Amino acid sequence: MPLTLTEALAVYSARVTTALDNALPDPALVPELLHSAMRYAVLTPGKRLRPFLVYQAGILMGADEVTLDAPACAVEMIHAYSLVHDDLPAMDDDDLRRGQPTCHRAYDEATAILVGDALQSLAFQLIADAGIPATEVRLEMVKTLAQAAGSRGMVGGQAMDLAAAGQTLNTAQLEDVHRNKTGALILASLQLGALCGAPQDRASREALTRYGECIGLAFQVQDDILDVEGNATALGKQSGADAQHKKATYPALMGIEPAREFAHALSEEAIKALQSFDAQADLLRALAEYIVNRDR
Amino acid sequence: MPLTLTEALAVYSARVTTALDNALPDPALVPELLHSAMRYAVLTPGKRLRPFLVYQAGILMGADEVTLDAPACAVEMIHAYSLVHDDLPAMDDDDLRRGQPTCHRAYDEATAILVGDALQSLAFQLIADAGIPATEVRLEMVKTLAQAAGSRGMVGGQAMDLAAAGQTLNTAQLEDVHRNKTGALILASLQLGALCGAPQDRASREALTRYGECIGLAFQVQDDILDVEGNATALGKQSGADAQHKKATYPALMGIEPAREFAHALSEEAIKALQSFDAQADLLRALAEYIVNRDR
Repeated sequence: MPLTLTEALAVYSARVTTALDNALPDPALVPELLHSAMRYAVLTPGKRLRPFLVYQAGILMGADEVTLDAPACAVEMIHAYSLVHDDLPAMDDDDLRRGQPTCHRAYDEATAILVGDALQSLAFQLIADAGIPATEVRLEMVKTLAQAAGSRGMVGGQAMDLAAAGQTLNTAQLEDVHRNKTGALILASLQLGALCGAPQDRASREALTRYGECIGLAFQVQDDILDVEGNATALGKQSGADAQHKKATYPALMGIEPAREFAHALSEEAIKALQSFDAQADLLRALAEYIVNRDR
Repeated sequence: MPLTLTEALAVYSARVTTALDNALPDPALVPELLHSAMRYAVLTPGKRLRPFLVYQAGILMGADEVTLDAPACAVEMIHAYSLVHDDLPAMDDDDLRRGQPTCHRAYDEATAILVGDALQSLAFQLIADAGIPATEVRLEMVKTLAQAAGSRGMVGGQAMDLAAAGQTLNTAQLEDVHRNKTGALILASLQLGALCGAPQDRASREALTRYGECIGLAFQVQDDILDVEGNATALGKQSGADAQHKKATYPALMGIEPAREFAHALSEEAIKALQSFDAQADLLRALAEYIVNRDR
């Protein structure tokens, strides 16, 4: 019997956590503090959504799971480094992340900066070091990850988000921020997985790209909705933390019901993008539904 | 007539600056502030020592200059990003770099963090994107750069340096800091150049590695000596800035004359490592001499 989405998320989260544990430098190696802080930043339990996408896209395209461990670790390291740097006092200044002290709180600011820097290098090293797939495919993977992580991807989105503070964005501008800040790495996760399987199958890769664009944005719209609703329940009023901070959100721009409809339309479009795939894509289909129906 | 070292340094500095200008994102591209800050951090005039090593090692090993532009830009971007992050308030808290405001002073701290992050991605993208050399060699180059930049290289050396603040290091420990903090990227520059030429020529690559280890350390020892001497002249006393900050230095550990002898011995060993090369290696030989005879 095939795994349910919840079971599959748990299976691949455990798998990538083991792989990350193996890929991260031993904490007994010099410099010990840096290596301990790198492990702290990466090994905190989490959804591991991006590695899940690497595995699912890869399996769908015929890759074996062992081949997918390196790119799965790489995208999670990039994600983890971005969280460590985003949490810094000069950025979002957060003390907690997933209920635990942020890296610069648990260690110190200088160490947190270096943790992010070293995790980024390690992500590229892992992909370049993988024995398979073919060298030209691995190079394509390095390029894909570098573009998604850089100034025209994740880091660029973060810069756009900072620049937008206190400004009034329209829907197109907000979408642009999210497409870079979170969408680029989600998309890259699917592309890296696909490259490990059938890099020549352009049509399938494009289908997964369309799927990734849709779920990336749907994820963000639902986050915005949950911020409003969570706060409505908790605070007994309609406006959430984002609205209080004058942060542009989809519910604020289009209203809560239209935002909900938008999220569901994106989810349906993501599922539609997978129509050429058989039942093997059911976990990705279930994920697209889960993203807009989750309540946290 | 062959170029003198001074002429050659100027030629290749100009060459890599043009290549960097082309490789950096257009400042008119969104996010404009980030792209402008990336250019600010990289395009400030400098010695461009690391690109020079890429070009010289590459030419020595038969690579053409066009092939060497991508790795030359990549090592300079990694170097520039490390300076931007090192200058941050949480690290060395420097206001000036080469007589100009540091990146976080000219822009802001959050932007400076993102500048470093984006430059690192771009460095890997450049190498992966280069049309030549062969894919397996480019992958080897990605690996070489990632290792040199990461927690067991440059970033690790920075962490070791931070951990050493206020502690008493011995000569072996001080060498360990420098071998990682500055030596790893100097070595990688030579290796990347060599890989573009004759990647199979192990003996020559090992000779360049030995050369790189020696000049990397010699460079640092001479820096320490200049700190003592520069301050002796300027302040009319024997102790320099490093000594005042209780930072371990070679003159402090071994005395000024033995440090000077050590630097010259390293320079001679670097030149000796090049004995299998013909007159084409004369610029690298001249550089090894220059490093320990410079007065600034």
